[in-house]
Amino acid sequence: MNGYDSLQKFEVPEIIHGLGAMGIAGQCAKRLGGERVLLVTDPGVIHAGWVDEAVGYLRAEGLKYVVYDNVVTNPRDFHVEEGARVYEKQECDVIVAVGGGSPIDTAKGIAILVSNHGCIHDYEGCNLVTQPVPPLVCIPTTAGTGADVTQMAVVTHSEKRMKMVILGRAIMPEISLIDPRLLQTESSELIAATGMDTLTHAIEAYVSSLSWTLTDPHAIHAIELVSEHLVHAARYKDIKSLDGMSIACLEAGIAFSNAILGAVHALAHPLGGFYDIHHGLANAILLPTVVRRNMEYSLDKYARIARAMGVDTNGMSLETAASSSLLAITKLIEDLGLPSRLSEFNVNPDDISLLADLAKDDMCMRTNPYCYSKDEIETLYREAL
Amino acid sequence: MNGYDSLQKFEVPEIIHGLGAMGIAGQCAKRLGGERVLLVTDPGVIHAGWVDEAVGYLRAEGLKYVVYDNVVTNPRDFHVEEGARVYEKQECDVIVAVGGGSPIDTAKGIAILVSNHGCIHDYEGCNLVTQPVPPLVCIPTTAGTGADVTQMAVVTHSEKRMKMVILGRAIMPEISLIDPRLLQTESSELIAATGMDTLTHAIEAYVSSLSWTLTDPHAIHAIELVSEHLVHAARYKDIKSLDGMSIACLEAGIAFSNAILGAVHALAHPLGGFYDIHHGLANAILLPTVVRRNMEYSLDKYARIARAMGVDTNGMSLETAASSSLLAITKLIEDLGLPSRLSEFNVNPDDISLLADLAKDDMCMRTNPYCYSKDEIETLYREAL
Repeated sequence: MNGYDSLQKFEVPEIIHGLGAMGIAGQCAKRLGGERVLLVTDPGVIHAGWVDEAVGYLRAEGLKYVVYDNVVTNPRDFHVEEGARVYEKQECDVIVAVGGGSPIDTAKGIAILVSNHGCIHDYEGCNLVTQPVPPLVCIPTTAGTGADVTQMAVVTHSEKRMKMVILGRAIMPEISLIDPRLLQTESSELIAATGMDTLTHAIEAYVSSLSWTLTDPHAIHAIELVSEHLVHAARYKDIKSLDGMSIACLEAGIAFSNAILGAVHALAHPLGGFYDIHHGLANAILLPTVVRRNMEYSLDKYARIARAMGVDTNGMSLETAASSSLLAITKLIEDLGLPSRLSEFNVNPDDISLLADLAKDDMCMRTNPYCYSKDEIETLYREAL
Repeated sequence: MNGYDSLQKFEVPEIIHGLGAMGIAGQCAKRLGGERVLLVTDPGVIHAGWVDEAVGYLRAEGLKYVVYDNVVTNPRDFHVEEGARVYEKQECDVIVAVGGGSPIDTAKGIAILVSNHGCIHDYEGCNLVTQPVPPLVCIPTTAGTGADVTQMAVVTHSEKRMKMVILGRAIMPEISLIDPRLLQTESSELIAATGMDTLTHAIEAYVSSLSWTLTDPHAIHAIELVSEHLVHAARYKDIKSLDGMSIACLEAGIAFSNAILGAVHALAHPLGGFYDIHHGLANAILLPTVVRRNMEYSLDKYARIARAMGVDTNGMSLETAASSSLLAITKLIEDLGLPSRLSEFNVNPDDISLLADLAKDDMCMRTNPYCYSKDEIETLYREAL
């Protein structure tokens, strides 16, 4: 869309939310023209029993299926290729992903390869997927990724130990079935880490240079919901808090798929590729560091974030109000008992220059309120060590 | 989706907004696989020059096209049939609608007939369109209808003089290109009337029994934008106010496509079918009457609507706050200089029983906060006479 870069966009898949939403998985796959389903998941989700349940819904509609579950955190290029071979060998025609960000991103990668061919490395970047991909139905089992409603996938280049961001309209899922029941089998640690991923999505989308009228209310509401529900959800796993987090994740996903992200994600991606740090934890550690530096470029917005996190900013100067967002974020991380330093993950200070090179070129840096230089990025990493 | 009625849904087309958005019409039609475009519009839009501009963008992409412009306010079944014959004869494969609600609804009707065949009357109701329809790109020239982002079309049954509501996922447009420039050639009267349509969409979607977390912020923001921009837009047609109204219309459309509408629309449809009253004017006249009666079933929501319309409800009782929404609506209609009584359109009191029969069965009544009986509907019509 040359010459029309100033246009604003808003695109979301069909979203169906509620207790029992997974029950229409078979109907959805069928409506999309599917007869043979590749169900992409991981061993944890199978262990929790959700795949058995999902398979029942596929069977009830007379669909054939094959399960691909060789999926790991920070999903790898070679798993995407393996999954694509299974899809082709079994002559599948629709993909259903049941899981967190890793199975969903693996499913997106498989969808790309079986229709656009070549190597998944070829598609790193923006809008390089040109051929239509098979229909994808997502059923998230975490409230963090948002990948079920975004046109983004992140796959690890195993040789380079680097996370590749693949962005484009072609990989938007057709349908997301958001069933808060599925969050009940997460560990408290996973709820906390994925919840911080959601918070980071919402904050980065809100301060992004591409944010607009249609993304802002979803970003702000997601921040409010995280503040209200995350600690309770991680502690007690009650369905009300988990439902709140499922909506937070959804709205943050809607916001960031259309407004993209920022420096936290740009710095977190190399950490995932290099050290295999869980994406939510990497975000949680980097978020305060980046907010502290980002703030001056968008005081109004950080003040609004503080209010969304429950801070009464009445009578505060704009600077103080903006700073209070940082305090609220730090307190939330403490309340969740999450690690707060990169050194806890054996990040080697000697790697920082290389990490900074990768972060500088990460697509997410382009929409940050300020585009950090390599030196500044190294400083950010050191502050988080 | 039997047995899953409690699930909540959210679906919107791809939305592209901004000055010059129409410029990518050709690229969009092509991306959807189109080679021969049926461009549906009306004589007023042609006169304003927008069709010439649109056709230029189609030509620039090497697309063939044919224009169908036999479209009237409250579009008729026989025009839909005529347009479908043109589509088939010219072997079109994509539809571009340029205009207000009438060309867009006509385009949706044509899309249904060329793929599902039969008579347009067969599709009145919910989800009766079962075959996929040709891709539809909408370019709205009014800020009222929202039809460019909804899964709803309203077509007049010419023999019965009755408006048929057609609702279903199949008729959601693929892409909406929202270019506020196009609103500049509307008359002030049309801006006012279509703006009241937008306000009615937002209010009815917000109080609807199907409203939820994902529709509410869009409904409320639409109400805020109408309060801020409509009077100014109608008086001065400045691009800032028109842009505000274009977003209001869009967000109201997103809200009501997913939360559906209420009693104002149920009562307005028969007036359009019987007396050919402009839909926006019918809504403007009925809105205060319905709000007065609806209020008691949803005091909280009407109080929130009052705040969105700029009323400071601090210190007011809930009842007073809710009532102040009615005052704000009435004042807006007065400021716009719109007619406020049905008698100005020669509505015959003898027809009221028949009108009430139709309104009672209108699909939009089902999601109103209270389902009015036939007697109560007759009273509502009489109060608006």
